[in-house]
Amino acid sequence: MLSLLVLAVAANGAAATLVHSNVTISGPNTDASQVTPFVYGFPDCVNGPLKDNAVCDPTKDPITRAKAVVSLFTTAELIANSVHQSDGVARLGLPPYNWWSEASHGVAWTGPGVIFADSGPFSYATSFPQPIVLGAAFDDTLTKSVATVISTEARAFNNAQRAGLDYFTPNINPWRDPRWGRGQETPGEDAFHTATYVYHLVDGFQGGIDPEPYVKVIADCKHFAAYDLDDWGGVIQRQFNAIVSTQEMSEYFLKPFQSCVRDAKVMSVMCSYNSVNGVPACADKYLLQTVLRDYWKFGDDRWVVSDCDAVQSIFDEHNYTTSYQAAAAVAIKAGTDINCGSIYYNYLQTALNESLVVRADIEKTLVRQYASLVRLGYFDSPDKQPYRQLSWDDVSTPASEKLAYTVAAEGFVLLKNDGTLPLKKNLKKMALIGPWANATEDMQGNYYGTAPFLISPLMGATAAGYSVQYVPGVSSVLDTSNEGFAAAVEAAKAADVVVFAGGIDESVEAEGLDRTTIVWPGAQLDLIKALADIGKPFIVLQFGAGQVDNSWLLSSKAVNGIVWTGYPGQAGGTAIFDILTGKVAPAGRLPLMQYPANYVSQIGMLDMQLRPNKATGNPGRTYQWYTGKPVVEYGFGLHYTTFALSWHTQPAVLYDIGKLVANARSAPHLDLGTFDTFGVTVRNTGHTTSDFVALLFVKTTAGPPPFPNKALIGYTRVHSVGAGSAATARISVALNQIARTDKGGNAWIYPGAYTLSLDVPEQITHRFVLIGAPAQLTHFPAPGHSS
Amino acid sequence: MLSLLVLAVAANGAAATLVHSNVTISGPNTDASQVTPFVYGFPDCVNGPLKDNAVCDPTKDPITRAKAVVSLFTTAELIANSVHQSDGVARLGLPPYNWWSEASHGVAWTGPGVIFADSGPFSYATSFPQPIVLGAAFDDTLTKSVATVISTEARAFNNAQRAGLDYFTPNINPWRDPRWGRGQETPGEDAFHTATYVYHLVDGFQGGIDPEPYVKVIADCKHFAAYDLDDWGGVIQRQFNAIVSTQEMSEYFLKPFQSCVRDAKVMSVMCSYNSVNGVPACADKYLLQTVLRDYWKFGDDRWVVSDCDAVQSIFDEHNYTTSYQAAAAVAIKAGTDINCGSIYYNYLQTALNESLVVRADIEKTLVRQYASLVRLGYFDSPDKQPYRQLSWDDVSTPASEKLAYTVAAEGFVLLKNDGTLPLKKNLKKMALIGPWANATEDMQGNYYGTAPFLISPLMGATAAGYSVQYVPGVSSVLDTSNEGFAAAVEAAKAADVVVFAGGIDESVEAEGLDRTTIVWPGAQLDLIKALADIGKPFIVLQFGAGQVDNSWLLSSKAVNGIVWTGYPGQAGGTAIFDILTGKVAPAGRLPLMQYPANYVSQIGMLDMQLRPNKATGNPGRTYQWYTGKPVVEYGFGLHYTTFALSWHTQPAVLYDIGKLVANARSAPHLDLGTFDTFGVTVRNTGHTTSDFVALLFVKTTAGPPPFPNKALIGYTRVHSVGAGSAATARISVALNQIARTDKGGNAWIYPGAYTLSLDVPEQITHRFVLIGAPAQLTHFPAPGHSS
Repeated sequence: MLSLLVLAVAANGAAATLVHSNVTISGPNTDASQVTPFVYGFPDCVNGPLKDNAVCDPTKDPITRAKAVVSLFTTAELIANSVHQSDGVARLGLPPYNWWSEASHGVAWTGPGVIFADSGPFSYATSFPQPIVLGAAFDDTLTKSVATVISTEARAFNNAQRAGLDYFTPNINPWRDPRWGRGQETPGEDAFHTATYVYHLVDGFQGGIDPEPYVKVIADCKHFAAYDLDDWGGVIQRQFNAIVSTQEMSEYFLKPFQSCVRDAKVMSVMCSYNSVNGVPACADKYLLQTVLRDYWKFGDDRWVVSDCDAVQSIFDEHNYTTSYQAAAAVAIKAGTDINCGSIYYNYLQTALNESLVVRADIEKTLVRQYASLVRLGYFDSPDKQPYRQLSWDDVSTPASEKLAYTVAAEGFVLLKNDGTLPLKKNLKKMALIGPWANATEDMQGNYYGTAPFLISPLMGATAAGYSVQYVPGVSSVLDTSNEGFAAAVEAAKAADVVVFAGGIDESVEAEGLDRTTIVWPGAQLDLIKALADIGKPFIVLQFGAGQVDNSWLLSSKAVNGIVWTGYPGQAGGTAIFDILTGKVAPAGRLPLMQYPANYVSQIGMLDMQLRPNKATGNPGRTYQWYTGKPVVEYGFGLHYTTFALSWHTQPAVLYDIGKLVANARSAPHLDLGTFDTFGVTVRNTGHTTSDFVALLFVKTTAGPPPFPNKALIGYTRVHSVGAGSAATARISVALNQIARTDKGGNAWIYPGAYTLSLDVPEQITHRFVLIGAPAQLTHFPAPGHSS
Repeated sequence: MLSLLVLAVAANGAAATLVHSNVTISGPNTDASQVTPFVYGFPDCVNGPLKDNAVCDPTKDPITRAKAVVSLFTTAELIANSVHQSDGVARLGLPPYNWWSEASHGVAWTGPGVIFADSGPFSYATSFPQPIVLGAAFDDTLTKSVATVISTEARAFNNAQRAGLDYFTPNINPWRDPRWGRGQETPGEDAFHTATYVYHLVDGFQGGIDPEPYVKVIADCKHFAAYDLDDWGGVIQRQFNAIVSTQEMSEYFLKPFQSCVRDAKVMSVMCSYNSVNGVPACADKYLLQTVLRDYWKFGDDRWVVSDCDAVQSIFDEHNYTTSYQAAAAVAIKAGTDINCGSIYYNYLQTALNESLVVRADIEKTLVRQYASLVRLGYFDSPDKQPYRQLSWDDVSTPASEKLAYTVAAEGFVLLKNDGTLPLKKNLKKMALIGPWANATEDMQGNYYGTAPFLISPLMGATAAGYSVQYVPGVSSVLDTSNEGFAAAVEAAKAADVVVFAGGIDESVEAEGLDRTTIVWPGAQLDLIKALADIGKPFIVLQFGAGQVDNSWLLSSKAVNGIVWTGYPGQAGGTAIFDILTGKVAPAGRLPLMQYPANYVSQIGMLDMQLRPNKATGNPGRTYQWYTGKPVVEYGFGLHYTTFALSWHTQPAVLYDIGKLVANARSAPHLDLGTFDTFGVTVRNTGHTTSDFVALLFVKTTAGPPPFPNKALIGYTRVHSVGAGSAATARISVALNQIARTDKGGNAWIYPGAYTLSLDVPEQITHRFVLIGAPAQLTHFPAPGHSS
């Protein structure tokens, strides 16, 4: 969604004067906001033309209400409201509406639907760390809190007519390959973790699970499905045909979407640019109807939006149709309700003329759109709607700013420490070196808005009381010159402690930019080695989401500590130095594996397969399937203290599959039935109060081979366990987590031996056996049979 | 071999003054030739220090002679002669020697061992079209003739002390993937075709098959093995680990090497940059000893050279060892006899000190080198050696220049013609447009020397009598601007006939540069469409080796003809217009398939597999395995006349495997035994004298599944078949061609039904049956068991 089509709305708002043009959103003052600021309005159900229409009757259900208003639309009016920038219908008192707002980690101006003020109220919004940092916190309560703040701020912007109520957020494609440029927008590589994360995120965004009477704001789970390649090997996302087996589609690529749609009841889904097994996702009736609506029961009060220009790509990149009108027809008939882009707007009339679609095809999508607006309270009196009362006072509150800080502090991962961290108080003079040392906007990653403030590492170090000498050493993460080394070395020699802040940024990993290497780019590693040679206490801060091979840093005795800091957001500098000085103890866990550098020469990104494959050299993907030795394991993270783990009560050693399934029949879905809840006593045996993330894995050889190395089945974060104290971590495990997926994509519970393990590296284990006949938990619809 | 290490030899030639430095050969006047021109000498066996050594005794065998001289070397002297730029041994009268000369399609200054004069004698050499054009001619006699001219010119350069006797030529890696930047150096994608081609090439290069008494010049079959990735997806050849199954290794990747080594008795082989199944090729005892020396009987009078700096890469790119000395040791012990590069020179002493190698390891490689020099007549009196009499008079002779022209004329492939070609004589005014229209050096492709002349398309058109208006239209093949379109269109409107000369060149496909797309690059296709709109007779010349998707050009009625012209060499312009005007009739065949553009988004280059693979989306590679619809089929090529084919005598319908194998026992190897010879009557039923390439394919479902679409099993080119006349094409087929390869890499004859087909698209077919038990023809050594 980087290059986008924007409808430049003329002052009189008449459809005939609309001009479609390609623009790129590059900052808060883009063409989109300069032309004529878009103003959001609400229909007037008291005195407006629709006051007697059923859409204005709050006693009726949303779909009935939507049908009543959409039935009044002329064909031209249907078409004028089929795209992200909808015209509305002036004669009916329906204002224009922009469905495309963004809020990946805070209300953002990177979607054209949000208009920040140049100064004063609504000129900024809380800017949280990137989702990958939130993922590293492994804290579901925190995730929901973040989403709640964002949705509150979004409602406040909407009430000020500066943003829509629909957000193309979150990105929940599991991070299959370390090279992906957009992995930063996700919580990591594990599909169960992402599924759990998105449940809590949607809960916070939408104001509850399918809340009544009103949805707070609409979240949009994207990109459906199997999207995680941007531009690699000459292939861009709009051309890519992802070949995915039904087994891996169900168990991995769709798992977060099932959680988002079926369980968290998200109100919208975005179909992706890529093709899946030969069919462009936005033209795929199997995905959009069979899986999404029939299998997961995505209702007609919610909608599917195309990724921006993805309908266009059905023809001009995928060549799946031979014209734009045919692309529009195949998309709308497959179930793409809103065209982010302009193809529906420009070609649906031609498609109607050529009998490729009928009026009912378009009307159905409009009903879905307006039903969702009904659920947002769009047609109802604002008086009784608390969300409509939110204002600038509710944006960037002290509590929200504290939360942005907390996400960073909770998410940072201590990758190495020889005791140098936390820094001793006698270290006063700090040499702060590296391309990230004075980073500001870079700390936000992509899809961001204007933050209230941006605390750079340099500001954080200064505020922490250090006498700081800042020398970048290199001009950017990609700079290959060693011209700046001498000054950096000189500063380091004069200091008591040396901190290097580097890694990767948007120049290396971004939308439209996958990585080709996973080493420290530019001359950074040479600079790190030069600094290491000096022999001062030496800490490396590793920024960016995608991991870089830290083998040398981990093996070098001269590198005393490494902290992964991701994209830490507006309070990054403060959080970093609170960790380095010990004001806060680190407890984040790496939500992705750190692969060795040679991984990229073993398997290309076009090959989607997770399981290792000897024929292609694929060494396997993610910690579940990778057959090599990772540089840093998935879930790794050190502390400033030590923890001893033990089972709170000894878990069962035998489970009867029949009884488990019988008990599960009361759950909304069989796979959500409880397997067991495991209590773990987490005893802080060191001297520092600290959070602890309990990660529970299972390993088995039950079910179809091959078998994953292990699989995450539960996690929880306990907070502030005092030195010498203990807390109990309770990890509830659903049947789905101990299930395995067959080649048809169905989840089964198989009899056999299972081993639980806690922590990375594992501290305690428990072996149990499942007896009885295999039990099928889900019936995944077979591809090729759209209903 | 682009970036290379050169030993800058001081005037006194003393080893102590040698300096190793990295330089890049970029033109005839490089650092390498400027420092102090290297002068080749010969040892003096009459009066020199070795006159009484057995090496000077021509009655003894080469290995005995080599051992006699190498036994005199000190350890330092052994080491000083272990690299491509050997010091020689001054005290023994052994001059320095550079093993690295190049002559891919003519004696070339792109290897440091060849020194062209600035002017006058030896300032140029015949520059043939790139091997891909020679491959397209499908003319084994022509191939041998070309190699004979090159070896003659190489000897003349050597006699003038301007070149060595060893040429890092030919490149015979079968062209697995259309994106490969070096496919231009090969005859194409079919392994049998390449195997046949290299047999005749080595025959011409070396002056016969294992000739006595003297080898003419030494050819070097490269790159051993499974090398066909240069820089793709962020992976360079020196890092790449090619995962190849034993089955496909034997039947495809090694097939040309077996022909080169076992059958054509090549004197040297180059191990490649890449790893194969985890082992760097130059460290792979399985490849270099088990397969090469034990299985194919590559004798101790011949040597293996590393690709340049490939020994270095064993450590610093592949990380297969932990030091350079260990890399040197593992390479030399695996069987890498000469280090193109400097690692042996700089680290073998350390390896000796650390007991990683012993003297005998180094001595063995020197024996192989000197034995090969003995076979070249290096130690023998020049008087009785005809090759030693060759001189400047033998370089660039009229016959050689004619041959360079003939290769181009025979190799061009007519891809489309609606009758516009040959051009009518009334078309006088020609608009010549496109980035290749005035190409000169570009016509040589890579690895070239100075040609005696370079006839551009523009010169060719002018010489053909056209009134030519030349307008490039775009500034390069990659130019995306349409600024030059108007002038091109204007010229086209004023012309009687429009010729567009474009395609790809070294800016798109090159050593170190694989392609990411296979479409017409830059704005060329837009320019072609603009020219097509004019409606004048319109011909497109498609240059470059890698194919571009011609779907639009083939379907457009306004494009009247397409000729693929590759890299046509020094006489390219003349040959092109002789074809266009009908002076010569085209008969070349495309030696590679033209894939549709979307192929590149289906499978990455890192995946080596040929057979289609549903799990990875691999649609299959080469015409044998590709499951999609090619844009242009392998072996396609039109004529100016029509040909009717019939079997000269009806072939047999039944063969007994037992008898076939029994008859084959008289062949040097069972798989070389004759299966049958097929006679085809080629009748020219049109009005134009023309060559015809008879391509014979077989299709079967005998043997292990899956089954290839079809496989080339024989070809021959008949020349100048007159209108109304007929010629007989005789195609001899060895057992190996109807054999199939099992998972262990063994060739078998399987009973079952087979269908022969002739021509593309097929004109006549013949069905036969093999009866009897399966018979194993070869016993391919299993990987992992080095002797």
